[in-house]
Amino acid sequence: MKDIQSQRDHRRINIQKVGVKDITYPVMVLDKAKKLQRTVANFNMFVNLPHRFKGTHMSRFIEILNQFHGEFDIKNLRLILEEMKNRLDAESAHLEIEFPYFIKQNMFHANAIGICEYRCKMHGVLDESYKLVLQISVPIAPPLSEQNGEGLPRSPGQWGNAVISIQYRNFIWIEDVIQMVEQVIRPDRLIEERRNNDNLPPTDHISAESILSVEKIVKALGRKFSGNNDILRFSVTVENLSEGYKTFASLDGPQEQAQA
Amino acid sequence: MKDIQSQRDHRRINIQKVGVKDITYPVMVLDKAKKLQRTVANFNMFVNLPHRFKGTHMSRFIEILNQFHGEFDIKNLRLILEEMKNRLDAESAHLEIEFPYFIKQNMFHANAIGICEYRCKMHGVLDESYKLVLQISVPIAPPLSEQNGEGLPRSPGQWGNAVISIQYRNFIWIEDVIQMVEQVIRPDRLIEERRNNDNLPPTDHISAESILSVEKIVKALGRKFSGNNDILRFSVTVENLSEGYKTFASLDGPQEQAQA
Amino acid sequence: MKDIQSQRDHRRINIQKVGVKDITYPVMVLDKAKKLQRTVANFNMFVNLPHRFKGTHMSRFIEILNQFHGEFDIKNLRLILEEMKNRLDAESAHLEIEFPYFIKQNMFHANAIGICEYRCKMHGVLDESYKLVLQISVPIAPPLSEQNGEGLPRSPGQWGNAVISIQYRNFIWIEDVIQMVEQVIRPDRLIEERRNNDNLPPTDHISAESILSVEKIVKALGRKFSGNNDILRFSVTVENLSEGYKTFASLDGPQEQAQA
Amino acid sequence: MKDIQSQRDHRRINIQKVGVKDITYPVMVLDKAKKLQRTVANFNMFVNLPHRFKGTHMSRFIEILNQFHGEFDIKNLRLILEEMKNRLDAESAHLEIEFPYFIKQNMFHANAIGICEYRCKMHGVLDESYKLVLQISVPIAPPLSEQNGEGLPRSPGQWGNAVISIQYRNFIWIEDVIQMVEQVIRPDRLIEERRNNDNLPPTDHISAESILSVEKIVKALGRKFSGNNDILRFSVTVENLSEGYKTFASLDGPQEQAQA
Repeated sequence: MKDIQSQRDHRRINIQKVGVKDITYPVMVLDKAKKLQRTVANFNMFVNLPHRFKGTHMSRFIEILNQFHGEFDIKNLRLILEEMKNRLDAESAHLEIEFPYFIKQNMFHANAIGICEYRCKMHGVLDESYKLVLQISVPIAPPLSEQNGEGLPRSPGQWGNAVISIQYRNFIWIEDVIQMVEQVIRPDRLIEERRNNDNLPPTDHISAESILSVEKIVKALGRKFSGNNDILRFSVTVENLSEGYKTFASLDGPQEQAQA
Repeated sequence: MKDIQSQRDHRRINIQKVGVKDITYPVMVLDKAKKLQRTVANFNMFVNLPHRFKGTHMSRFIEILNQFHGEFDIKNLRLILEEMKNRLDAESAHLEIEFPYFIKQNMFHANAIGICEYRCKMHGVLDESYKLVLQISVPIAPPLSEQNGEGLPRSPGQWGNAVISIQYRNFIWIEDVIQMVEQVIRPDRLIEERRNNDNLPPTDHISAESILSVEKIVKALGRKFSGNNDILRFSVTVENLSEGYKTFASLDGPQEQAQA
Repeated sequence: MKDIQSQRDHRRINIQKVGVKDITYPVMVLDKAKKLQRTVANFNMFVNLPHRFKGTHMSRFIEILNQFHGEFDIKNLRLILEEMKNRLDAESAHLEIEFPYFIKQNMFHANAIGICEYRCKMHGVLDESYKLVLQISVPIAPPLSEQNGEGLPRSPGQWGNAVISIQYRNFIWIEDVIQMVEQVIRPDRLIEERRNNDNLPPTDHISAESILSVEKIVKALGRKFSGNNDILRFSVTVENLSEGYKTFASLDGPQEQAQA
Repeated sequence: MKDIQSQRDHRRINIQKVGVKDITYPVMVLDKAKKLQRTVANFNMFVNLPHRFKGTHMSRFIEILNQFHGEFDIKNLRLILEEMKNRLDAESAHLEIEFPYFIKQNMFHANAIGICEYRCKMHGVLDESYKLVLQISVPIAPPLSEQNGEGLPRSPGQWGNAVISIQYRNFIWIEDVIQMVEQVIRPDRLIEERRNNDNLPPTDHISAESILSVEKIVKALGRKFSGNNDILRFSVTVENLSEGYKTFASLDGPQEQAQA
């Protein structure tokens, strides 16, 4: 009779992911206005392993991390992934970085904070090819009618969030992704821009009069990003925090254009 | 010349998910010892929509939620999904429920808390068929050698967590999933059990002497759950919180057994 | 010459607080409508110690906790404090309990969730006398003008929170504290009540027309609670979450009434 | 007969605190090694008001915040408090800043992360005088006996935290506070230091052999900080995260020294 225990010992059980996570670390990000922005990030580093992996190499993640010398420069993201893949003998390497990114605001609202925080994530993957997904959370202000009972400027408030993830074909600045989102979600800003600049191209937008809904905004963002050739793939989720409960809608793209 | 704006208006942009989330609600869960356990859950409810959806039905989620009459009985999970699918005219309906589940402990350690909390999630999906995924997070105690320098009992401590997600073929109690995990991760308990009951079947386990590693434990759990016919699919992640940084490993199953 | 090290050894360094914290545990709370409500609480238990304490009794907190038999009945709060004080030989005993409390709503808004969650805390102290502080966080809905562009009912939304802490002279139900807060912060509800019941006594309230501000609401709540003889002491904080940044105001009471 | 409503209107209800909170903002902190360290902080700004305050000046907090020009320099803390006190016509002004602070480590452990994160808070108050309280959370590693079953280096792990708040008489670097804590809580490091430097003064410490307890560590820290003349006042809390439940102890100082 076969011994069950010894059979079990021979079963090849393969680990799909192994790594370190939740490491707080200073980071340097590309900034369109200032070239570089220093901020603080949360790191996850992990690899997919071939079958023979024995689990003795966890300290190599830390050795690689220590090469950052106390500040991770995002320009080195691909190099780090190559080193992870080589030194850990892995089939693929992953680096997830989450950080607050700050952009100075044009003082549209007299009593708005002059610097705005956007939560960003980057997920770099290296297997046979290299892939980078950038995710940005953009706050959505309430429509003008709600903001202003008496025609006076009020601070923008928060109706909800648009969370956009993009895998780009050609490099796109964080600032440009945010601008694309804000052209859709902040009709007041768009209308203002048009007054000053009449020859802007026509843009998808939500009229200031319409009542906001997560479905309308997510579709408008879907149209906006589907029409951008620099973007290979994207997904977008819109959530409304202004009700007694949170509502949300999400979609993936690009989605095909129906013929008129 | 074609008008770009009007083309855009005709593009069919399809929403993949729409719903409500982060709703706190009392819930009644099946309990192996007490039949029912009252606890408090966090709910997400969402649907996948056909193309024609116009976004006017968000209040129907709340109408359905209000049928719970102040306490959601988990036995009604499938009925609720059917109602969501029908009333929202959806292709599929999803209900995610997260809650703490409490189990009385046999006082193995003299100064352990007599009731243990396990974080649980359930994710029910109804499309053409019905699917339920149960996820449980089970704390992992440090090995005996670390727990006890002087042969005295000490409270169990926390080395890390095993997070197991299963889609079952036949119903499995939360208690039984936890027991399967604890047979692997708590060798002390297993050894104690054996002393009292010599004719236990041989079980996969980690010897108390070996130094714990996320890779060893995740593989032992992979073997344990791969050998259970009540389980259709599973995934397991083990994380170690006891180091200066968090390490983790994860795998999916069942995985095939290689011939000896 | 005196030896510095040995002097140090004789220095009497006194611990002010010692205990256990962040324990999740099922709890049974007094409910005005249902007599008892089962929910899940987070516990902190600690004592103030006399000088001679040697730190050997930490397990006694767990022994006392284990007497709850898997569910803490809030009626026993004072008894538990007495046991803590006696068994740990302490100058004072503290028990902090935090839990979500659920109240069924009268369906004022057609698409509001029929059960509302209020975050509650209780802090019981026993030294020479017994003291209980009850804290409740009550969501504040936006004013009617913001809620409703088209005269249609909308879900109540959340403008901010009023967090009220009271030490009462005579027992007050959680429900009654919430009602006192809601009479001040939800003018719509108050106006509705008045229509149905003309002989209600005059009440402090904020007119629906006025723009909400944290200062106005906190003062209105200060007046309301200063006028209640069942309340020995209170403090209240109002925070506004609807702006681009959070604003808050707080005050303590009761405050004296100036003569007209 | 006196009208109750009009009496109420004349009651002077005084607000104790009013301000803005939870603002994320880049910050520049004094760094002993690098002179300046850029990190990201969470801000609360509030004032105590005189009775006549009408609640119309909330936007002034934002105006003052906007003078930071996108980065708050901690050297300006007192100037900002003066501006808050003047422009808001307040009795006292408060600024609370919370941020992660990073220090490069001497690679004592081969596989430790070469940069360590310390959670810091500063609370500046200006009334008739100026007061600054600095709070630092320092991770506590497990004792050597637990760290190392086989004589091999292991990453330091986390047994718990020491949270120290100090109000200093003379300026103290963040690095120096951390070093004072680590001399008490990391006996391994201290022993190592002594090997290299025999003429170090004798220091309060916990022997590597003794089993750690929150009471012992908090008392050792109490002795350490009571003996430092640069410190006017302090409080310290030690929490142990390595058990099945969290234990903690805390004390305030300086405490008097008993004569030997």
